[in-house]
Amino acid sequence: MPLTREDCARLDAEDPLAPFLTRFRRPHGLLYFDGNSLGMMPWAARRRVVEALDGEWGEGLIESWTAAGWIELPERVGAKIARLIGAEPDEVIATDSTSVNLFKLLAAALKLRPGRRVILTEVGNFPTDIYIAEGLAHLLGDVEVRIAETPSEAITEDVAVVALSHVDYRASALADMAAVTAAAHAQGALVLWDLSHSAGALPVEMGLADLAVGCGYKFLNGGPGAPAYVYVPRRWQPVFAQPLTGWMGHAAPFEFETHYRPSQGMKRALSGTPSVLAMTALDAALDLLLEAGMPRVRAKAQAQMDLFAELIEARCGDIGLELLTPRAHERRGSHLAYRHRHGYELTQALRARRVVPDFRAPDIIRFGFTPLTLCYVDLWDAVERLAAIWREGLWREPRYAQKAAVT
Amino acid sequence: MPLTREDCARLDAEDPLAPFLTRFRRPHGLLYFDGNSLGMMPWAARRRVVEALDGEWGEGLIESWTAAGWIELPERVGAKIARLIGAEPDEVIATDSTSVNLFKLLAAALKLRPGRRVILTEVGNFPTDIYIAEGLAHLLGDVEVRIAETPSEAITEDVAVVALSHVDYRASALADMAAVTAAAHAQGALVLWDLSHSAGALPVEMGLADLAVGCGYKFLNGGPGAPAYVYVPRRWQPVFAQPLTGWMGHAAPFEFETHYRPSQGMKRALSGTPSVLAMTALDAALDLLLEAGMPRVRAKAQAQMDLFAELIEARCGDIGLELLTPRAHERRGSHLAYRHRHGYELTQALRARRVVPDFRAPDIIRFGFTPLTLCYVDLWDAVERLAAIWREGLWREPRYAQKAAVT
Repeated sequence: MPLTREDCARLDAEDPLAPFLTRFRRPHGLLYFDGNSLGMMPWAARRRVVEALDGEWGEGLIESWTAAGWIELPERVGAKIARLIGAEPDEVIATDSTSVNLFKLLAAALKLRPGRRVILTEVGNFPTDIYIAEGLAHLLGDVEVRIAETPSEAITEDVAVVALSHVDYRASALADMAAVTAAAHAQGALVLWDLSHSAGALPVEMGLADLAVGCGYKFLNGGPGAPAYVYVPRRWQPVFAQPLTGWMGHAAPFEFETHYRPSQGMKRALSGTPSVLAMTALDAALDLLLEAGMPRVRAKAQAQMDLFAELIEARCGDIGLELLTPRAHERRGSHLAYRHRHGYELTQALRARRVVPDFRAPDIIRFGFTPLTLCYVDLWDAVERLAAIWREGLWREPRYAQKAAVT
Repeated sequence: MPLTREDCARLDAEDPLAPFLTRFRRPHGLLYFDGNSLGMMPWAARRRVVEALDGEWGEGLIESWTAAGWIELPERVGAKIARLIGAEPDEVIATDSTSVNLFKLLAAALKLRPGRRVILTEVGNFPTDIYIAEGLAHLLGDVEVRIAETPSEAITEDVAVVALSHVDYRASALADMAAVTAAAHAQGALVLWDLSHSAGALPVEMGLADLAVGCGYKFLNGGPGAPAYVYVPRRWQPVFAQPLTGWMGHAAPFEFETHYRPSQGMKRALSGTPSVLAMTALDAALDLLLEAGMPRVRAKAQAQMDLFAELIEARCGDIGLELLTPRAHERRGSHLAYRHRHGYELTQALRARRVVPDFRAPDIIRFGFTPLTLCYVDLWDAVERLAAIWREGLWREPRYAQKAAVT
C-alpha cells in the first residue's frame, strides 16, 4: 500500500524528536533541506547572542572577558563538540575557520613526521581542504600534495598525513574511518579527518585517528560563518605544534612575554582573539544536539532519507533523478545527492516554491536531512512540489536557466 | 585659574561630537577609559546584529549569502576601514584575526623579497606580532626574527620585512610611519604596520607603506573579537600571495575547482568562511567613525588627553604617577600610560569604583581616549575618584592586591 501524507503526519505524531522543531526558527511554509550547508537558527542561540550584546558587551564591557567567561568560550564550546565526536572534553577547541585550522594541523602533521613530505588527499575532497594543502606546500617548497582516486591504496612511506573528509560533500559517501586510519598507520602516516559533514549529523568515534577539523555552521547550527574546531587527542597534545602561534595560544597571554611559549593542552591550537558573538551562538546551539543525542538524531535521519528516496521513486520516477548516495545506512552521511542534467533549473524552481535543497555543479541536487528541524510531512510536501514542477514543466521557465559562472 | 567640573561641563556643551555619546550603550555611571581595548557597543551594531539574526539567518537562511549580501561583507567592511587609513576602498578587506593576518602578510612579504630571510621587529612590539613571526620562522626553518631596540637602525640587506606597530600598545608612542617606511625602502625591505592602536584613533595615511593589518574590536568598536583586516596596496596586489589559501580566496569559490586559483584583488587575502554576526557588528560600528570624521575625533582625543594629564598633575600630583606617553601631539596615540609601582592595585580600586582603565604588567596603567564615547566630565570625575582612592588609602585593601599570574 503506497504511503500517504497522513502516514507522514502519523510519523511526526510518533516522533520523539518532534518537540525540537519548535526550538528553532522555522520560517513559515519553508521546506528547508539545506541544514547541511547552513543550519537553522535555534531560539536559544538568538537569545544568548542578544544577552551577549546587551549584558556582556554593552554593559560588562572589558570585564566580560572574565566575568562572563568569554576567555573560556573556545574550550567550553570545544568540550561540547567533543561529546558529538566521541572525544574527551579537553581534546577539542573551537577556533578560527575550518580552512585556517586545516593549515595548522597539516603543518603540525608534517612536523610530527619529519622526513616525510607528502600530504595525501583524494579526488573530490572539499576544495578548501585541497587548496589549503596547496598553500602550505607552496610556502614550504618541498612538500607534495598527492590527490589520489583511492587514497587508502596510495599511502606510501613518504606520506606524512592522509587528509580526508569523513563524509563526501557531494555524494554523501561515508568513509570507513577506522579502516583508513589503520591503513595510514600501517604505513607510518598520520590521518586528519574533516568532520564538517559528519559531526552533528551522525555519531562519530575518533578512535585511533590522529587529528580532525570541522565546521560550526552546518549540522551544528552555529550560525553563518560560525567558528570551526580542532581535535587533537591527548596522546598528541604534548608534541603538537602549529605555526599560527598567536597570543591566545600562549601559556600566559596576558603576561605579554617577549617570546612564544605554547599553552598546555588544546589552547595551543588558538591564534588570535575569537569572535564572542559567533562563539556564543555556537555554544547555545550545541546544547540542542547534545540534548537530543546523536543516536536518535541519526536514526531519524536514516528514516527520513529512506522515506524521501522512496517517495522520489514512487512519485517522481519519471524525472530521471539518479541517486548518487549509497543506500546502505552505514555508508552514507546525512544528505542525499541526486544527479540530473537539469539539476540547476530544478533547484531554482524548487526554491521559488519554498523548497530549499542546494545545487553543486555541474549536475547535483543535494537534500540535507537535519532531524531537529525537519518533519516527515516536509518530505511529503517537498516531493509533491517537485513532482508538480516536473509534470507542469515549470522548471523550463527562462528565469531558472543557469547563468554563466561568476568568477 | 584652576579648572572646575563646570569648565568640563562647558566643554561638553560646546563639543560638536557630544551627540555621538547617545549612539552608544554607555553603562550608567561607568567611566570607561578602555575603548582602546574593547570599544563600546554602538546601538546601530546591536540593531544590525539582531536584524542579521532574525531576518537574515533566521528567515533568509542560505539565500542570505547573496540576498542579504553576506558574501560581500569582507569587502564592504574593508572599504569602510580603508577610508579611516587613507587607502583606496579596494585595498582593504576584513577577515580573520590580527594574528592570522600577520601570518599571511609576513609569509607574503618573504615571497616578495626572495633571498632575504630576516623579519625585523622591535622590542616591546605587541606580543602576538612577535609570536606569529616566530611561528612562521619555526615553520620555515631558515628565517630569523630579529628584535631590535631601534629598528630603523637595524635594517640590513638581509631584511625582507620590517614589522612594527604604528602606536605602541604600552607607552602609546606613535611611530613616524613615513620615515620608517623610507628607511626600510632604502635597504630594499618591505614594511608591515600593525594599525591596531592607531586606525580609528587618529587619521592614518598609508602613503608608501607596503602592508598592514589591524584589529576591529578596539577603536573601531566592532565588538569582542571582531574581525580584523588586511591592507595591500594596489601596486602589490597582482603579485601578493599568502599561504592560507582557503576557498573564500579562490577566484571562483562556488565552482569547486580542484586546484587553488587566487581571486583578483583583496579577496585573495581571505581564507575560510567569515562570521556574519561579527562582520555585521563591525560593519555597522564603522559608520559612526566615518560620520564623525577622523580629524574631529583626533582633535577631541588630543584635547581630552591634554586635559586629563593636566587634571592628574593638578589633583593627583602626590600619587607619583609617571607619564610614559609623549606629550607632543604628533608623537602619541590615543591612550595615556602612567607608570606606578602600585599600578595594579590602583587599577583594581578604580574599577571597583566604576572607573575602567586597564593595567599592563608590571606597572603600567593605561587610560584610553575614545572621543565618541567619552565626555569631558567623565575625565573630571575619574580623576576625582583616583584622588580619593589615594587620599583615603583605599587601594591598600587586600582584595586589590596582585595575585600570582595565572599561566
